[in-house]
Amino acid sequence: MGEGVEWAIHCCALLAALPKGATLPAARLSEYHGVTRPYLAKHLQALARAGVVEAVAGRRGGYRLARSADTLTLLEIVEAVEGSAPAFRCTEIRRRGPCRSLPANAFPRPCGIAAAMERAEEAWRGELGRQTLGDLVSQYQHGADQRARDRATTWLENTLKGEKP
Amino acid sequence: MGEGVEWAIHCCALLAALPKGATLPAARLSEYHGVTRPYLAKHLQALARAGVVEAVAGRRGGYRLARSADTLTLLEIVEAVEGSAPAFRCTEIRRRGPCRSLPANAFPRPCGIAAAMERAEEAWRGELGRQTLGDLVSQYQHGADQRARDRATTWLENTLKGEKP
Repeated sequence: MGEGVEWAIHCCALLAALPKGATLPAARLSEYHGVTRPYLAKHLQALARAGVVEAVAGRRGGYRLARSADTLTLLEIVEAVEGSAPAFRCTEIRRRGPCRSLPANAFPRPCGIAAAMERAEEAWRGELGRQTLGDLVSQYQHGADQRARDRATTWLENTLKGEKP
Repeated sequence: MGEGVEWAIHCCALLAALPKGATLPAARLSEYHGVTRPYLAKHLQALARAGVVEAVAGRRGGYRLARSADTLTLLEIVEAVEGSAPAFRCTEIRRRGPCRSLPANAFPRPCGIAAAMERAEEAWRGELGRQTLGDLVSQYQHGADQRARDRATTWLENTLKGEKP
């Protein structure tokens, strides 16, 4: 799994803390998280295409969550960045070797091994799908030290003032 | 996830079908699955290091399961090949940007985001850990067409005869 997943979840958690109607440009999100802007921009665009965030154009533009944090799941964020293809790829090796001349209908799909791997991925998706961004932000804030929360709040207030025309 | 996981599980399923005491050399396992021998050898060695299979030396040597299929889990096979490092890597980006000058103790570990991702991976591992190779082979055989099972049985019988001195 690429670093984009970590970046994307942290960005969504920060966007969840914005006052109603406010946005943050990609440059501010990259500054806050200390990550490379071009790569972050790519992940933000993926989040926008997936309907997790929305891009607002114009001088006061930037990103904001597309829906309330309570209706967004970790699964949506992870799949926006990583795609929804299974991690285990079945290449049907059961059809090679001594079985290679048998017709396709001798191999009912899916292969039992692929099905077993899929059950595990379904458990992973299920867990991510049950965790909302709202829950996460609430646990995240309760877990954070007061000093870190103060820094974040001050940065956000100053940044939003600076972004005003 | 690399193709080695698919190869390793299929090899273990075939080894589970061997008569007591019999082994299959890496060359026969690669022939049966139609996969490249040097890469398969690397995965078989990883399975041996993890205690999933054992290598028997000598002219009649080869690989066999190290324990009964009912005591081997899919998780052991997958982790033998892919390692047990989490797929999500937390790089502590919460400590950058405006928070970068705070001391380490301002960031209780783990980060809530890493913890949420870990819960999903734990669900994945839990599911793989509940599935034994024995269950899998039984489902695999019941799911397979009679023609494919006959080919596998014939190949195995002939190969084991050929491997005898």
